[in-house]
Amino acid sequence: MTDSPKQTLVQTPDFHIDIPDGDNRERNICRTCGFIDYDNPKIVVGSVVRFEDKILLCRRAIEPRHGYWTIPAGFLEHNESAEAGAWREAHEEAEAHIEIDRLLAVYSIPRISQIQLIYRATLPTPEFGAGIESLEVKLFDWEDIPWDELAFPSVHWALTQARDVWDQEAFPPFSNPTDGL
Amino acid sequence: MTDSPKQTLVQTPDFHIDIPDGDNRERNICRTCGFIDYDNPKIVVGSVVRFEDKILLCRRAIEPRHGYWTIPAGFLEHNESAEAGAWREAHEEAEAHIEIDRLLAVYSIPRISQIQLIYRATLPTPEFGAGIESLEVKLFDWEDIPWDELAFPSVHWALTQARDVWDQEAFPPFSNPTDGL
Repeated sequence: MTDSPKQTLVQTPDFHIDIPDGDNRERNICRTCGFIDYDNPKIVVGSVVRFEDKILLCRRAIEPRHGYWTIPAGFLEHNESAEAGAWREAHEEAEAHIEIDRLLAVYSIPRISQIQLIYRATLPTPEFGAGIESLEVKLFDWEDIPWDELAFPSVHWALTQARDVWDQEAFPPFSNPTDGL
Repeated sequence: MTDSPKQTLVQTPDFHIDIPDGDNRERNICRTCGFIDYDNPKIVVGSVVRFEDKILLCRRAIEPRHGYWTIPAGFLEHNESAEAGAWREAHEEAEAHIEIDRLLAVYSIPRISQIQLIYRATLPTPEFGAGIESLEVKLFDWEDIPWDELAFPSVHWALTQARDVWDQEAFPPFSNPTDGL
């Protein structure tokens, strides 16, 4: 979930903004090589992971929001299903082998052009560890969740919505809360 | 949903494949300008649109699958919520002002790196027309749907799954069918 590779390596492409032939939207086009950066919205996949009555959270070792707590989540990669991506992120960030149950929520974050697909998952055994993008990984009782140190609003949304359907087998997925949390 | 703007305008960028510093995956990097094409999976948003007992379909005026029938759907644009994108696509392709009800399905098409978010929607009045990407737009009775002339497998999935919950208010969204349809 970091942009740092782009920052460390890339020269600034010489983009100008124009509407390509046959399109109806402005796109970034490189003056040097003619490449059109369609740069579509990005898909974040993640999971609220439960072991017994506890919830798995990761403390971020990367920007943005270094040091804050999050659920395992990150950008979907090519040729991955959404569920496979959520599983991979839990494995990379928390060294956890989760079992995905069902879709918990679909969030639209238009300001940053993100769609987030968050699954409900369980951890069959309490085995996990801090992956390279995490400072630490811990299981929290509900009342011990560090609410003031969560990395993103959608982490807050996902946790509270997961709690609402804690013992429900099937349910329609949540979307962005309307109470402006 | 066409790639033709890219085809008509863009020179071939001089990409080589390498793993950027700090990343763990191969990316396309332009030798000329250094640009990294992160080129994430794309999000398609669409809707199964119903007017009374009929379903709205569009016959495609563009490739791929020119001349075949589809539900209104296309790529999510920047700074758009998923629902807003599905609404826009119905407006662009079918000149329809739909009312989105709820999420019908989330499909993962890893082979082409697509996530499709398909909504259930209604058309309050039977007003519609062929947008620039459609040859014609029609309301079909269920038994008249041109099953052999549907543009994509996911159109088939969405229509049959929509039919399964035709009169259900709330339901968990469908995903790819497992019967290999």
